[in-house]
Amino acid sequence: MIRTLRVDGRGECTRGGEEQIALWQQDSDSRIWIDLCGGDPQAEEQTLLALGCHPLAVKDALRERHPPKLEEFPDFTFILYRGIAHFDDELNHQGQPIAFFVGQRCLITRHPQSARSIERLYSEDGEHFLAKGSTFLALRIMHLSAGIYLDNLLAFEALLSDLEDNLLQGGNDQHMRELVAYRSRLVKLRRMFNYHKNITDELRAGEYQMFPEEESLSHVITDLHDRFERLHSLAQMFYELCGDLVDAYISITSHQLNSTMRVLTVITAIFVPLSFLAGLYGMNFDYIPELKIENGYFILLGVMGVLSVALIWMFRRMRWL
Amino acid sequence: MIRTLRVDGRGECTRGGEEQIALWQQDSDSRIWIDLCGGDPQAEEQTLLALGCHPLAVKDALRERHPPKLEEFPDFTFILYRGIAHFDDELNHQGQPIAFFVGQRCLITRHPQSARSIERLYSEDGEHFLAKGSTFLALRIMHLSAGIYLDNLLAFEALLSDLEDNLLQGGNDQHMRELVAYRSRLVKLRRMFNYHKNITDELRAGEYQMFPEEESLSHVITDLHDRFERLHSLAQMFYELCGDLVDAYISITSHQLNSTMRVLTVITAIFVPLSFLAGLYGMNFDYIPELKIENGYFILLGVMGVLSVALIWMFRRMRWL
Amino acid sequence: MIRTLRVDGRGECTRGGEEQIALWQQDSDSRIWIDLCGGDPQAEEQTLLALGCHPLAVKDALRERHPPKLEEFPDFTFILYRGIAHFDDELNHQGQPIAFFVGQRCLITRHPQSARSIERLYSEDGEHFLAKGSTFLALRIMHLSAGIYLDNLLAFEALLSDLEDNLLQGGNDQHMRELVAYRSRLVKLRRMFNYHKNITDELRAGEYQMFPEEESLSHVITDLHDRFERLHSLAQMFYELCGDLVDAYISITSHQLNSTMRVLTVITAIFVPLSFLAGLYGMNFDYIPELKIENGYFILLGVMGVLSVALIWMFRRMRWL
Amino acid sequence: MIRTLRVDGRGECTRGGEEQIALWQQDSDSRIWIDLCGGDPQAEEQTLLALGCHPLAVKDALRERHPPKLEEFPDFTFILYRGIAHFDDELNHQGQPIAFFVGQRCLITRHPQSARSIERLYSEDGEHFLAKGSTFLALRIMHLSAGIYLDNLLAFEALLSDLEDNLLQGGNDQHMRELVAYRSRLVKLRRMFNYHKNITDELRAGEYQMFPEEESLSHVITDLHDRFERLHSLAQMFYELCGDLVDAYISITSHQLNSTMRVLTVITAIFVPLSFLAGLYGMNFDYIPELKIENGYFILLGVMGVLSVALIWMFRRMRWL
Amino acid sequence: MIRTLRVDGRGECTRGGEEQIALWQQDSDSRIWIDLCGGDPQAEEQTLLALGCHPLAVKDALRERHPPKLEEFPDFTFILYRGIAHFDDELNHQGQPIAFFVGQRCLITRHPQSARSIERLYSEDGEHFLAKGSTFLALRIMHLSAGIYLDNLLAFEALLSDLEDNLLQGGNDQHMRELVAYRSRLVKLRRMFNYHKNITDELRAGEYQMFPEEESLSHVITDLHDRFERLHSLAQMFYELCGDLVDAYISITSHQLNSTMRVLTVITAIFVPLSFLAGLYGMNFDYIPELKIENGYFILLGVMGVLSVALIWMFRRMRWL
Ligand SMILES: [Mg+2]
Ligand SMILES: [Mg+2]
Ligand SMILES: [Mg+2]
Ligand SMILES: [Mg+2]
Ligand SMILES: [Mg+2]
Ligand SMILES: [Mg+2]
Ligand SMILES: [Mg+2]
Ligand SMILES: [Mg+2]
Ligand SMILES: [Mg+2]
Ligand SMILES: [Mg+2]
Ligand SMILES: [Mg+2]
Ligand SMILES: [Mg+2]
Ligand SMILES: [Mg+2]
Ligand SMILES: [Mg+2]
Ligand SMILES: [Mg+2]
Ligand SMILES: [Mg+2]
Ligand SMILES: [Mg+2]
Ligand SMILES: [Mg+2]
Ligand SMILES: [Mg+2]
Ligand SMILES: [Mg+2]
Ligand SMILES: [Mg+2]
Ligand SMILES: [Mg+2]
Ligand SMILES: [Mg+2]
Ligand SMILES: [Mg+2]
Ligand SMILES: [Mg+2]
Ligand SMILES: [Mg+2]
Ligand SMILES: [Mg+2]
Ligand SMILES: [Mg+2]
Ligand SMILES: [Mg+2]
Ligand SMILES: [Mg+2]
Ligand SMILES: [Mg+2]
Repeated sequence: MIRTLRVDGRGECTRGGEEQIALWQQDSDSRIWIDLCGGDPQAEEQTLLALGCHPLAVKDALRERHPPKLEEFPDFTFILYRGIAHFDDELNHQGQPIAFFVGQRCLITRHPQSARSIERLYSEDGEHFLAKGSTFLALRIMHLSAGIYLDNLLAFEALLSDLEDNLLQGGNDQHMRELVAYRSRLVKLRRMFNYHKNITDELRAGEYQMFPEEESLSHVITDLHDRFERLHSLAQMFYELCGDLVDAYISITSHQLNSTMRVLTVITAIFVPLSFLAGLYGMNFDYIPELKIENGYFILLGVMGVLSVALIWMFRRMRWL
Repeated sequence: MIRTLRVDGRGECTRGGEEQIALWQQDSDSRIWIDLCGGDPQAEEQTLLALGCHPLAVKDALRERHPPKLEEFPDFTFILYRGIAHFDDELNHQGQPIAFFVGQRCLITRHPQSARSIERLYSEDGEHFLAKGSTFLALRIMHLSAGIYLDNLLAFEALLSDLEDNLLQGGNDQHMRELVAYRSRLVKLRRMFNYHKNITDELRAGEYQMFPEEESLSHVITDLHDRFERLHSLAQMFYELCGDLVDAYISITSHQLNSTMRVLTVITAIFVPLSFLAGLYGMNFDYIPELKIENGYFILLGVMGVLSVALIWMFRRMRWL
Repeated sequence: MIRTLRVDGRGECTRGGEEQIALWQQDSDSRIWIDLCGGDPQAEEQTLLALGCHPLAVKDALRERHPPKLEEFPDFTFILYRGIAHFDDELNHQGQPIAFFVGQRCLITRHPQSARSIERLYSEDGEHFLAKGSTFLALRIMHLSAGIYLDNLLAFEALLSDLEDNLLQGGNDQHMRELVAYRSRLVKLRRMFNYHKNITDELRAGEYQMFPEEESLSHVITDLHDRFERLHSLAQMFYELCGDLVDAYISITSHQLNSTMRVLTVITAIFVPLSFLAGLYGMNFDYIPELKIENGYFILLGVMGVLSVALIWMFRRMRWL
Repeated sequence: MIRTLRVDGRGECTRGGEEQIALWQQDSDSRIWIDLCGGDPQAEEQTLLALGCHPLAVKDALRERHPPKLEEFPDFTFILYRGIAHFDDELNHQGQPIAFFVGQRCLITRHPQSARSIERLYSEDGEHFLAKGSTFLALRIMHLSAGIYLDNLLAFEALLSDLEDNLLQGGNDQHMRELVAYRSRLVKLRRMFNYHKNITDELRAGEYQMFPEEESLSHVITDLHDRFERLHSLAQMFYELCGDLVDAYISITSHQLNSTMRVLTVITAIFVPLSFLAGLYGMNFDYIPELKIENGYFILLGVMGVLSVALIWMFRRMRWL
Repeated sequence: MIRTLRVDGRGECTRGGEEQIALWQQDSDSRIWIDLCGGDPQAEEQTLLALGCHPLAVKDALRERHPPKLEEFPDFTFILYRGIAHFDDELNHQGQPIAFFVGQRCLITRHPQSARSIERLYSEDGEHFLAKGSTFLALRIMHLSAGIYLDNLLAFEALLSDLEDNLLQGGNDQHMRELVAYRSRLVKLRRMFNYHKNITDELRAGEYQMFPEEESLSHVITDLHDRFERLHSLAQMFYELCGDLVDAYISITSHQLNSTMRVLTVITAIFVPLSFLAGLYGMNFDYIPELKIENGYFILLGVMGVLSVALIWMFRRMRWL
């Protein structure tokens, strides 16, 4: 599906389809945002090439998986961004590549599925940003997208804090499994945010034609970079917190195991000798003199009591009880 | 709440409210410190914009959560600092954003809650620093704030040292839980201090209009940077020490568990065969020749004694006893 | 075995053997790709020296093991690349050194075994790249080879994800052994990819004669570098994920061990005192008054029941059951 | 206490007290070393200010705790160094700040307690270094101090090697506690050495007035830097070795625990079924036919023997024995 | 012992002792290699100073322990290299400092014990390298020495691979102790290789008088640097592999312990209740009605059978069997 948002020389804005491209080409004062979403890859390739995009960039734009990147081409600055197809509080996420071709008078975006940041800008205030320049529109889309990532990461913070409390107050396997899953997702997020951060880092240097060193632009890029940097820094911090929790949990479990084993050992150590004595006097030998002693049973009970008390006293002294 | 501290051309200092702003605007030799604390965000936004602050900076200043940052704007250098709303020895802390708009003749600070460093300077010697320049006042506020952080971290050092002693002399779960909580807080502090350190690192380069390369200023910035660097370095060190303690505790617990298990094993290994023998001669078979042997009972006791001694000797040789 | 692919001044392409070298030397408009594969090292050394390769480069090219490297020589840029002799989804891999001598009008490749990337280019579209320049052909070979690495790494991702699920749902030793083997292989891959990344990093600087700063070339080098960087980043990420799984597995196992021990302790703690009581009344003392009490047996059963319930209630309160 | 070492224009050296300062101020060819040790801080502050030291530097010099630093002031280069008040082989150490004010014709040192490096230079060959320049004297003091650190660290190496042997041949808790204490001390030393290393790193750049880029000076600074770098590198290495030992000890303990548990399990697994059989035939049922069988007792003994052998054979096959 | 290798203006080579130094000093076209091995330190100091070596360099050259370094002096470039006194496959190694004074027409080497690389060059083809320049000879000695390190590290790789297999198929304490020893040795090797790598890194910059930026020299330095870099990278990789093995071994041992404990628990859980029942009916109460029931014994056996089956079924469902 191709949809377009065209702003003409007088600032009038029209939303439409493929047909607006010709109008835009005729009017050198107009600007256009061409959004390709969920179309047939081969048709999209034709469209992009017809619009003058470099074949190597088009190839990258149409790949299903490719890390985010930034590359300069004759008429366009090409940005491959990792947008959000799905994301929830538990950090389950599914990304999608969003390709930006940032040209002088046009912005071309291409993505396989619907993207919330693009939807919002297309239906609401995209024209204001396009009027300022295609560069501003591209940066705005990424800014909105990064904001969605940020909301989800901050929601995750609360979840992680709860998990910490649960784990430390006698966690179970399920909590550990969640933690492992979070770590695995955070590693992947951190890697992606790192790529994004590198993109704005390079844009700040002002060496890309569509991103010259201008004051108005530089604040917007800095803002976006701060957001990417914060995402990376949060992902890294949450990853470390998860790792520390795993270590802590091992440590607490070891300690509890030790306590458990002491209980077992104490019980065994007290009753096993007593049971042995009972077994001894349950034997059927013809001649066991103790069995004939008057009050032998009560004497044995006394011996057993003394033995128990001695053992308990010993364990107390060893600080096992 | 808006309060102001104005120093006029002759060095006279007046404390007051919003009304002093007009006086300051009329007298081009005067300087002013405008402090916005705990007011209505929308009203504060209006005030800041009216004072000529850049909309993007105002937006950042009013956010509830944003990492510390430094950014140059036409009339102001904007610093977002993470001040202290609450902090105790156990590193429980709650931060609050303190926004600084550092201009030629004025310093605007904005923060949602009362801040000790700002209170002290407003009520005591803020005018001396304002007289030297708004830059000096801003740096002084951060310097005092960093000093409070530092006092708390150094107080924590003693606490950590006690915890180390406790853990190594038979710690319990509660100690481990404390340690985990400290690590989690230290990770967050370290991240914040890192942002602060980056701010003074950039200020030292002398590329910000309000922080030119002058000798008097450079010593003050270096002093503040040393403090931030020290905070970061201490947080990092305490974090590593906590992690090492977790590792050490796992190791000691493993060793104790091993000792416990050896006791259990030795007791079991000695008594179980003896009990088996007793059980054997407690059976009711019609014909068990040993039961008829003269002194059979005493012979069995002898066999049991020999067996015990042999087992104990064996465990000694295995260094289990 | 020596085989050659020659493109003459009119763009005609001929595949052949050693005999084409003389033809190429006579026609200064022609270009040639000389591929030495699996021949006798001494003969290959002679051939390479005869073609004007530097003795130090030839020595490196013929080594069985040498890390990838890039070095400038008078007539050639020498690249030692680690190609693939064998690779499977489980990351079992066996490399082989592929030496590239990139000259003005010729590319010489040397490798001990057959290499898929070279086979494909020699039999299919090598002439197109050779026509653009020997540099392009060399980069293309590495690009194809890196693509094979990438396919295998991405196939491994699925395998790792399965392993994660298996491990967390009650893994066994076999899973752990696999994980250890993967980590060991990933460390080696990561090291190799790091060397490759460094090669393209240096090529990008444009300081090598055969790799000047030209736009067409720079996109191709960037593309190859992106691939190497991605391989390195994936290997690093998989390595970290494997390490996190080991930690997680230790943690889960500790927890399960603790649960197991509690079951053991509870059973022991309940039955051992009961068995002791039974043993006590199995003794053959002449006078044990309880044995004579009417319904003594049932009273004892009642005492045992009460004891069991009390112990179970106690373990419940300790959250062991 | 103030003591001075003055070298006049003809190279004559006099040791004395405060009174020499006036003599030095009169003779512009003379040089002086003023050492303030263990005096009253307020008096020292007055002295330092009177000698022309910058108030900010004096403040830092008199602090009880401050990380090492290097700062340029109008007449002095200020170095805050962490000297040794006490140090032993077990890395117990107590530092003290030594402040250096390095001026054109004078060196002022200030420290709260006696310092071995300063004692040695004051009483022995301090005048030779002062004659070459106050810079050389300051560097020499730090060089001697670093040498003392180095001797202690190298003595610790032997101690660590012994600890490694002890731990691996069945360590005890005491060894682990020592290791933990060493790690904690090494972390603190490493941090301090890092600050020292940074000081000489900056001095090497030749941007400090008192440390210009001259050949004779540059060798001395390099020598000192090598020493600091070596201290840092050794502290880091020992720290890693200690950490590896903790990991190794956990691993060995786990393995030993496993062996212990196998012994316990084997004993239990063999005797528990046998004891059950014995208990079975110790029951007092009116009719238990086996008890009447001729040689029933010996048949049971045979069954028990076969059972034992079978279990032992099974454990052998499982490699538990 | 002093031995010399002199090459005169016509390329004639003579091996001899101290007496050749005078001949070399007279003939300004000749070059000399002076090797000091295992002599008296004081005599060596005199010799070195007489040859014009800088006192600071001589001091470093004669130290027993000093990390490798590179320093420029008026007439010599001074290199302190860590050579091999002893090295075996298990990474047991003992180093020795080899000092190089690289001058225009002479190379002086000094080392306390015999060094294989020096022996080989002195007895075989040292003259070829000396003829090219003392720089080439010095680099060649280090190249040979690094080659010996490399052979040993690669031999260790096979050993480590065997250890990995052994550990994963039920290792024992001895294997763990070996691993710990290897890690400790690798840490020390890695540190040393890092210093060596830094030396060639600096040499490559071409800022040392005896190592100017010439093509022939630059290839030789690059070759040596590649070797040092490879040694460092291998030591680092082996260290990480050893650490991963320790982690893996802990993990596998934990899992095996868990299995062991399950066996123990299952046996205990099945037999303890049965034994209790047997004990119950072994009591000597006057009135136990069950004992009188016809076939009471067989009914009890049936109950015991049902109980066992139920417990086994339960453990199956819990996946413990
Ligand atoms: Mg990454
Ligand atoms: Mg990262
Ligand atoms: Mg990266
Ligand atoms: Mg960051
Ligand atoms: Mg780590
Ligand atoms: Mg960890
Ligand atoms: Mg951070
Ligand atoms: Mg940090
Ligand atoms: Mg940062
Ligand atoms: Mg730092
Ligand atoms: Mg530090
Ligand atoms: Mg750790
Ligand atoms: Mg860690
Ligand atoms: Mg590497
Ligand atoms: Mg790497
Ligand atoms: Mg590298
Ligand atoms: Mg990377
Ligand atoms: Mg790990
Ligand atoms: Mg540090
Ligand atoms: Mg460091
Ligand atoms: Mg530092
Ligand atoms: Mg270092
Ligand atoms: Mg680490
Ligand atoms: Mg560790
Ligand atoms: Mg090092
Ligand atoms: Mg290193
Ligand atoms: Mg180093
Ligand atoms: Mg490396
Ligand atoms: Mg490391
Ligand atoms: Mg580890
Ligand atoms: Mg680690």
